[in-house]
This record gives sequence, C-alpha cells and structure tokens, in this order.
Amino acid sequence: MNAALAAGCAYVDGQYVPIAEARIPLLDMGFSRSDCTYDVVAVWQGGFFRLDAHLDRFDRSCACLQLAPPVGRDEVARILHECVGRSGLRDAYVEMIATRGVPNAGERDPRRITNRFYAYAIPYVWIANLDQQAKGLHLAIARNVERISPRAVDPTVKNFHWGDLVRGLFEAYDRAADNAVLVDANGFITEGPGFNVFACYRGQLVTPAEGVLHGITRQTVLELAAAEGITVRVGRVEPEMLREASEIFLTSTAGGLMPVTLLDGQAVGTGEPGAMTLRLRERYWDAHRGGQWVTPVHYPGG
Amino acid sequence: MNAALAAGCAYVDGQYVPIAEARIPLLDMGFSRSDCTYDVVAVWQGGFFRLDAHLDRFDRSCACLQLAPPVGRDEVARILHECVGRSGLRDAYVEMIATRGVPNAGERDPRRITNRFYAYAIPYVWIANLDQQAKGLHLAIARNVERISPRAVDPTVKNFHWGDLVRGLFEAYDRAADNAVLVDANGFITEGPGFNVFACYRGQLVTPAEGVLHGITRQTVLELAAAEGITVRVGRVEPEMLREASEIFLTSTAGGLMPVTLLDGQAVGTGEPGAMTLRLRERYWDAHRGGQWVTPVHYPGG
Repeated sequence: MNAALAAGCAYVDGQYVPIAEARIPLLDMGFSRSDCTYDVVAVWQGGFFRLDAHLDRFDRSCACLQLAPPVGRDEVARILHECVGRSGLRDAYVEMIATRGVPNAGERDPRRITNRFYAYAIPYVWIANLDQQAKGLHLAIARNVERISPRAVDPTVKNFHWGDLVRGLFEAYDRAADNAVLVDANGFITEGPGFNVFACYRGQLVTPAEGVLHGITRQTVLELAAAEGITVRVGRVEPEMLREASEIFLTSTAGGLMPVTLLDGQAVGTGEPGAMTLRLRERYWDAHRGGQWVTPVHYPGG
Repeated sequence: MNAALAAGCAYVDGQYVPIAEARIPLLDMGFSRSDCTYDVVAVWQGGFFRLDAHLDRFDRSCACLQLAPPVGRDEVARILHECVGRSGLRDAYVEMIATRGVPNAGERDPRRITNRFYAYAIPYVWIANLDQQAKGLHLAIARNVERISPRAVDPTVKNFHWGDLVRGLFEAYDRAADNAVLVDANGFITEGPGFNVFACYRGQLVTPAEGVLHGITRQTVLELAAAEGITVRVGRVEPEMLREASEIFLTSTAGGLMPVTLLDGQAVGTGEPGAMTLRLRERYWDAHRGGQWVTPVHYPGG
C-alpha cells in the first residue's frame, strides 16, 4: 500500500496519482464550458454498491452529450477498482468523469476535440454524517433561486452546472438551515445539491418525477419501498406537500438516506427522524452488506 | 523571450508556465461544481482593450458569487500584463478566473474553502475570422434547447455553465449552420456561446436587454452607435425581428463584430454583410489603435 494514496487515488492521463497531485488541463472544456458528465459510486466495507447501475447511467450520460471517452465500460470499471484498490479505502466516494477535452489552438467546435476521462477514489463523503442524521437536517426551500430548467440542461445527465444549487446553499445558510431544495419555474419541488428528496405525505411516499437526476439511491429507495409494501407516488411535489409531510428525507450516494427534521424552521412531523425513514435507511444499509448489488473491490493481494 | 511561452503563458499557483503545462486541481470546485467566474480581455497590437471595464466586471462577478480571490484588482492587472508580456503575443486572448477552490476532505460548505485565481494569455481567438466574416456567418435560432434562466444562473455574472449553449451549437451544426443563438422560456432572443447579438430592424439597432451577459463588446457597440447617431433599442427581441432584420451581427471579445448573412438558411437582408455592421466594425477596430480604451502591455524590456 502506498501511504501517499491513502487520502485518495486518482487516474489522470493513464497514471494513478495521489489525489492531492491530481490535476486537469486549465484549457479542458470540461472546465471552461463545464462540457462534461460524471457519476459517483460508493464503496462500502470493501464493496461497490450498484456499480452496474452507475456505469449504465454514465454511458447514457456520455451518449447524451455526444462524448466518447477514450475508455470503454469494462476499462472504466477496471480503473475504478484500481483507484480504490491502490488507495486501500474500505469506504470510498468514487467518481468517474468524461470531459470534452483540450481544443487545439483557436478551435471552438466540440466535435473536433479528443474527449478525456478522469477518475478518483477518496474517503466516503457524507452530505450529513450519522451524528448529524441522528438530529436530522434543517432543509430550506430556496426562494431566491430556481432550478435550471430541463429545457436548458438535462438534469438526468449528471452534470457540474451547480450555480443554482450553490446559490440555494448560500440562501439556506443565511436562513440558518443546513441545506436547500430548489423549485422549478412552476414552483414544484425538484432537488438539492447532490440529492433527491422524498416526503411521507398522507401515508404515501412521494418524490418528484421531473426536473431531477434519476438518482441511484432514489431508485434504490423506490425498490426497497416496494419490497416493504410502501406505496410510492412519483410525480409532482408541491412545497405545501413538504410542509404537511410527516417525514422528509434526502437521498444521495454521499450519505444514503438522510432524515430532515426541520423545514424552513418548522418541525417536520414530530421533529424527530420518522419511522418510515429509519426503516428504509436500515434496509438501505442492509443491502450494502452483500447480495446482488455489491461488487467486491479488487484490492491488491486481496 | 521563452519560446515555450509563445503558444501561451498561464499563471497557476503563483508560477508562470507554458499554457500546455497549466493545470488545475481535479478537486477544485471551480470544476466539480462550476463554482467560479471569469472574464476575457483582448490584447490587440500590443494593447489591452478596455482593461478597466473587464476588471470592473470581474470584481462584480466575484462579489456576486461571494468569491474572494487571493489577488486584488491591481495584482490581477499585473498578472495579466505578465502573462501577455512573457508570451510576447501582440494579439492575445487573455482570461482571468476565480474559483471556489479545493475543499478539505469531506467539506461541502463553500464558505469554508480558500478561493483560487488563475490567468492565461493565448493567441487571439476568433469566433469567426476575417475570411469567415467576409462571407458572413450562418446563424441558427435553437429550437430544441432554451437558455438557462437568470432566475437559476445570472448571465451577467460571466460563467462556465455552457451546457445549453453547447447543445445549441450541436443543433446548429446538425442544421448546417455555424453557430446558434438561444431563446429564453418566453421565446425571446438571448445570446449564443460567447456572444451577444444585434439586429438592424426597421432602421434601428436592437439587442436584448435581459437574460444576457452585459458584454464589453456589446457596450462598446452601444457607445460607438450613439457616437454615429444610430438609434439603438435595448429591449425584448423576438425571433421575428431577426427574421425581418436587414442586418444581423454578433459581438464578442473573441472576434469583435461579426456579420451574420444567413439566419436558419434564409438570407439576411441582401445576403451580404450590411453597411451599418461594416461601419460599426470599422469604428470598433479603429478604437483599438489607440485612445482612452487602450492600455499598452508591459512587455519585458519594452
């Protein structure tokens, strides 16, 4: 094990390097036009969670943006195993990125640029860690910013266009909240920075259908809820439905299911993490301990 | 003069390096959240054009995003002079960038991150060069994508959220056009990838007021037109006004005023670059030869 890689290992230009040394060209249009896509898969206790689903989505995202990264699906999987394996991390946040690449001098046509691929593994990232989850999050519904429309940037193609989400975060902080969820131009709930949102409303679980990433954690919750006999309605979610909800939780690869106990300063339900949230959260982490969704990481000498 | 710098010189982490070697951290949130702003100023025949206006806008953009780059305005100007001076370029495209920076492990709060500053000078970039301008550009009005709303991302804060603009470009190419202009959610004309748009409509010059970058070249055209006694209306521009226009041109620091002679396959006016366009373009380049808007570059030994 290389100690310099324990804080994270990145794949850049065919080399595996410590995360602190990982750099991309200043002129990569993945930066200068945010012309790129990415995906994040978790490693938990030495196993990737739903690796195939993340690779499928990454492939689809690349195709939607007319990006052809220099490595195919199997090679991407191999690189992700290498990044985690070389870092030695048992619980990791693993990202793959395809960018438009570096144009030749004066070139502005994205069709004429060789696309690039980057990846890295760092210690598992929590939007809210287990201590914060015990108390529950304080979520704000952003008032001063709306989510980028799907007619401008497709939210189902995972992207770094976070300007609206970061504005929402600053607004949440100004209002003493931990995080923000944004509404669309019609005032319907969409998503927040890196997460989908669910509510228990009149005994049913609800989550937005449109204007959001089709999160793998979101999908996992839909499947776990079905197995638990919980009715889920995927459709339009109005802010009023969140205000009347008995439970709210966020879903993300960076933290799983995270209970929300305050919404715009008002208690959600009893003000404690709800029973349905805790049950689904337990099922979610159970599913990480083995079974069809877990792919053991190839650790060196392992 | 360092020959390696002749293709461009960048400023990264306090060092001046050849543009081909300039890299930013993979984990800079300027990349991973497109949480950054930038500005571009031209150098023409050894002089910056309207440097103060660009520095003013950059300062305002940073403030709007709550970014505090580690270098102040005078230091930014000094770095830009150094980048151009060390490259030896007489005609250059000069960019300054402020990013959120690299978070500590697990940190997701943008307030707790040290912001970063990058800059570079490369040879002058043309959206359309003088040969292409002689024929005039073929512009498409995008039908399948709309411009990101100002309620999501403020277009007056220059940003790398180009996903919508790149989609517009691909659509334009599919329709055999050179470039695209996007409409907003209400169907009004906004801007294209890196440019504002003007039309000569019923004898008046018109350009959109809202949902666009307040381009310095746009501002220069407004001032030059006033000096020429040309009436300009800055307001809502409908696609029909472009279709009925006798002249259309694009404005950008990357190319100045660029005539459009085809709109969605139909000739604009006579199908040749228009008289008003050519007159303003001449005044624009005249203004680069000296006067209040020109700041001579400090070249080494110069």
